[in-house]
Amino acid sequence: MKNFRLIIEYDGTAYHGWQIQKDDRTIQGEIQNALERMTRRKIVLNGSGRTDAGVHALGQVASFRCDTRLTAEAFQKGLNSILDDDIVIHGCREVPETFHARFDARGKTYHYRILNRPLPSAIDRRSAWFIKRPLDFSAMQAAAGHIPGEHDFKAFEGTGSPRAHTVRRVSQAGFVRETDGYLTFRISANGFLRFMVRNIVGTLAEVGMGKRTPDRFKAVLLSKDRGQAGATAPPQGLCLMHVNYEEGL
Amino acid sequence: MKNFRLIIEYDGTAYHGWQIQKDDRTIQGEIQNALERMTRRKIVLNGSGRTDAGVHALGQVASFRCDTRLTAEAFQKGLNSILDDDIVIHGCREVPETFHARFDARGKTYHYRILNRPLPSAIDRRSAWFIKRPLDFSAMQAAAGHIPGEHDFKAFEGTGSPRAHTVRRVSQAGFVRETDGYLTFRISANGFLRFMVRNIVGTLAEVGMGKRTPDRFKAVLLSKDRGQAGATAPPQGLCLMHVNYEEGL
Repeated sequence: MKNFRLIIEYDGTAYHGWQIQKDDRTIQGEIQNALERMTRRKIVLNGSGRTDAGVHALGQVASFRCDTRLTAEAFQKGLNSILDDDIVIHGCREVPETFHARFDARGKTYHYRILNRPLPSAIDRRSAWFIKRPLDFSAMQAAAGHIPGEHDFKAFEGTGSPRAHTVRRVSQAGFVRETDGYLTFRISANGFLRFMVRNIVGTLAEVGMGKRTPDRFKAVLLSKDRGQAGATAPPQGLCLMHVNYEEGL
Repeated sequence: MKNFRLIIEYDGTAYHGWQIQKDDRTIQGEIQNALERMTRRKIVLNGSGRTDAGVHALGQVASFRCDTRLTAEAFQKGLNSILDDDIVIHGCREVPETFHARFDARGKTYHYRILNRPLPSAIDRRSAWFIKRPLDFSAMQAAAGHIPGEHDFKAFEGTGSPRAHTVRRVSQAGFVRETDGYLTFRISANGFLRFMVRNIVGTLAEVGMGKRTPDRFKAVLLSKDRGQAGATAPPQGLCLMHVNYEEGL
């Protein structure tokens, strides 16, 4: 049995998220179908984790096992020719049979883009959250400074999707100011709860609007109470940039 | 009679170009319809020039005259609320009644983006021309160096759309290397023939592929013969960045 590891970029706009669904187009569904077409075998594609509808990825990682004579290169070429052009396989290689994209993931980095200026962008409307009201960058950055470290992120977990363990270790979190009114929030952690980044960004945006102070943001984080956090930021600003594994994997 | 000048950004992907057509959605058609809805008057919207299907704009300029009590600000707000989010009006102001966006245009700047690397981009597929084969940047830049100045650009004019006068003055033309395999070709001139930028870029790409030398590119330019130029580059890489007018207009 061979085991393959894929690096996947996708524009999530047209998909109902990563996870396969019966009636809707999903990233996992599209890739799995393409692999089954190529191999004429039943394939299970394991992603490093789900992304929600409308969320993008530059560096999603997934793995699948298959009894096949096809090489990693043949899989990459075949997938890129079968898949629509909003999914691109940027890497495919054979890995030890024990490798599993989800269980072996050590950490992930997400970026969330906000466009903060008086008018939205026509060309870039699918990859940023447009906020008209001027945001206080320093206040948002100060609030974001409370995120790194090991915390129980229950306050930022999506409702209806509870995890038994909600403690995660964030290694970095903060904003970078780009040109033309763009702000990019970058966060890296050993794992993320569902909607965690979007709930954090939604709450930080309220800090930027002056609705909460940076200290209040810290109190929300410590409260472990979803009711205290702000609204969930929309999906199109979010992009899964990178998934970390142990060296060599 | 008032006269208004608009600055318009659009994602050209979903449109059959700028110019109004009977059965197809166009940028001019959408904005003109919105203006007629707002004013209940017949409106003629004059753009600085056409852009073709799939071509984008960050700074298209257009003007329209109207007997109305509406202010420039009201037009801008109204248009931005009526139009789909792939068209954004970035400016609207009243100008002297004699102003005409096309006749008064002194020059334009276009950018054309090429993505040159082994694999395409999923997220950015609608705003760059993906070329897999490695391009010789220095050769393309050398060829582009022959473009500035006053020339008869007949060799780069689209077939079936002849202009009586095909001499144009190019003030700057050249490539900038961006990150991740992107090259941006920037060109400014006092005017452009139909398909001129895309035909120039298509020919420059052939220089980059080693099919022509920079000197051969110069010979094509001087030949005034469309048959000598390369293929037309695809529309999605092209963006109208800016239109120049006399100061104060």
